[in-house]
Amino acid sequence: MKKQLIALQEYLNQNGLDAAYVSNPTDINYFTGFYSDPVERILALLVFPDKDPFIFAPQLEVEAAKEAGFDKDVFGYLDHENPFALMAGHIKDVAGTPVKWAIEKDDMSVQKLEALEQQFPDAQFPNNLSRYMENAKLIKTPEEIAELKAAGDEADYAFSVAFNAIREGRTEQEVVAEIEYAMMKKGVMHMSFDTIVQAGANAANPHGGPEKTPIEKNELVLFDLGTVHNGYISDASRTVAFGKPDDKSLDIYKVDLEAQYAAMDAAKPGITAAELDKVARDIITKAGYGEYFIHRLGHGMGTSEHEFPSIMEGNDMVLKPGMCFSIEPGIYIPNVAGVRIEDCVYITEDGCEPFTQTSKELKYID
Amino acid sequence: MKKQLIALQEYLNQNGLDAAYVSNPTDINYFTGFYSDPVERILALLVFPDKDPFIFAPQLEVEAAKEAGFDKDVFGYLDHENPFALMAGHIKDVAGTPVKWAIEKDDMSVQKLEALEQQFPDAQFPNNLSRYMENAKLIKTPEEIAELKAAGDEADYAFSVAFNAIREGRTEQEVVAEIEYAMMKKGVMHMSFDTIVQAGANAANPHGGPEKTPIEKNELVLFDLGTVHNGYISDASRTVAFGKPDDKSLDIYKVDLEAQYAAMDAAKPGITAAELDKVARDIITKAGYGEYFIHRLGHGMGTSEHEFPSIMEGNDMVLKPGMCFSIEPGIYIPNVAGVRIEDCVYITEDGCEPFTQTSKELKYID
Repeated sequence: MKKQLIALQEYLNQNGLDAAYVSNPTDINYFTGFYSDPVERILALLVFPDKDPFIFAPQLEVEAAKEAGFDKDVFGYLDHENPFALMAGHIKDVAGTPVKWAIEKDDMSVQKLEALEQQFPDAQFPNNLSRYMENAKLIKTPEEIAELKAAGDEADYAFSVAFNAIREGRTEQEVVAEIEYAMMKKGVMHMSFDTIVQAGANAANPHGGPEKTPIEKNELVLFDLGTVHNGYISDASRTVAFGKPDDKSLDIYKVDLEAQYAAMDAAKPGITAAELDKVARDIITKAGYGEYFIHRLGHGMGTSEHEFPSIMEGNDMVLKPGMCFSIEPGIYIPNVAGVRIEDCVYITEDGCEPFTQTSKELKYID
Repeated sequence: MKKQLIALQEYLNQNGLDAAYVSNPTDINYFTGFYSDPVERILALLVFPDKDPFIFAPQLEVEAAKEAGFDKDVFGYLDHENPFALMAGHIKDVAGTPVKWAIEKDDMSVQKLEALEQQFPDAQFPNNLSRYMENAKLIKTPEEIAELKAAGDEADYAFSVAFNAIREGRTEQEVVAEIEYAMMKKGVMHMSFDTIVQAGANAANPHGGPEKTPIEKNELVLFDLGTVHNGYISDASRTVAFGKPDDKSLDIYKVDLEAQYAAMDAAKPGITAAELDKVARDIITKAGYGEYFIHRLGHGMGTSEHEFPSIMEGNDMVLKPGMCFSIEPGIYIPNVAGVRIEDCVYITEDGCEPFTQTSKELKYID
């Protein structure tokens, strides 16, 4: 049994819990090596303090779960069957009637909770397993860091494709097409999120999308992209100059880069997440752009882009070796331009190392 | 205000409810024209029986929500702020202290429910708004059917690309790359799900994925794909012959096609979902392949592939004009071959019409 599962059993024992219901597909993968998005069907991993865990899955996923290497029971159900009644039967066979449950409250829907309560009317749900998962995944192992580096290498390759794909008159969406096509031809079938290419004033809308707008000369072009490698993600942003952008654009690039470098330098064991956010934010504020940096400095990452630690004001978590997160200051001036420069990094014994190596000095493309 | 919002207000009034909390991004889009996936951030539409609704969103989404045409208030929050405390303040300003809430129990996480309960300790959640949404979206309007037809046209184009992309030695994943690249070049930036290309025995694993396996001659090749068009999806499957497949493969194709045609013929107002499932299943069972048809006949669709009506055993919902769903019998013989033939259709006054027109007669590709 994977050591992650043994650790969860220990947590259940120590907290006097009778069962854990793992519902988040990424977390089921973390414990079992089996990944599937069940959409509206039911996929769950049931774990007990001193009985064998099992997977409960749609019948058409049962073989895949076994092939993924999970060596305990995998129970299936058919579309016309009542999944929670069937699941409850298996739970009672294996572990009697659990009373104290740990569920992933951040993931589990109210409807599923009510369906579970219908089967187990005396159930209590004191513990939020989502908090356990955040802490369990907080410090990455060397094996995990190797996967994240491999994902970072893929992102670096994507940037090389991206920079070569810029042409006057080509749209942002066409550049996305070139990037994702090149990645698929290399066997990278999943980007970790929709690839972002935004030029000129479009880039001032962070988390907006690529448009059918032709890219024009003398603008900044912002790329934000990432891949999924064996379940681990990359996520990085670069902003480049296509032709000769105006002075304002060049100034916000300079300030944002200074903030990014300063945060990279400051990221080491002992500093808190909030302090690190402040390092970058102070530089941008001092340069007069504070009001245009409208998001946190970074987010934790690993198997997804929403893990711990969140690098933001108010988070006093002290950084430690093995923590992985993004450092992505951004300056967005509405109707003018937007800049974001982002690496994901892991904390080492005395600093941090980025997963992406693409140069951050402003690159000019003709 | 959109008529969908007015209908929801009416529902709240008729059911004595004080507030609705819409959390599903697709449903927020349905009511407001604004789509965004907030990932772990909070995005909500708050609706009251006789006060103006408002959107509560991450600050960096506020402009986009306004630009999408929502003409009521959009309140933002910053990453370091407590979203539920802020949201509760806005709710109290607009509508006092709601007691009876309608929430989307299928979508809303237990954690968000608990956060809402913390702000409104006397809140009750008697109604599952997910059920309301399913019924509200069940009968598509002519405008919606036009969008679904346009999405179907895109799927037909994707099949034409797909059939031309098959080459001996080219991998399943490389064929996916060609399909999605061609779609993006046409400006179709989102497939409605990961494109499936599976050849030979791989196709016997329904909902498995495309592999790095080279496609070999004399096998069946299964395609399942779809696009997103103005928020409406297409979803269709075709299975083609590359070279000359063996007799077993040809036989399961023949049976599956007969089942698909029979269900298309039977789909009309008055038949129940369960009866329609049985029309196809009986044909497959009679031919001796019943145990290899391991999923329901179809799923409702519209803005997603998991809407009502579900075409399966046990669902006595009577089909009516305007309902939209897939008809997708499949036969999967482990280690041998798999066939799925799928159209999504809408029910008319006296039958059904498919959204995809690509021929279903077995196509031989050399």
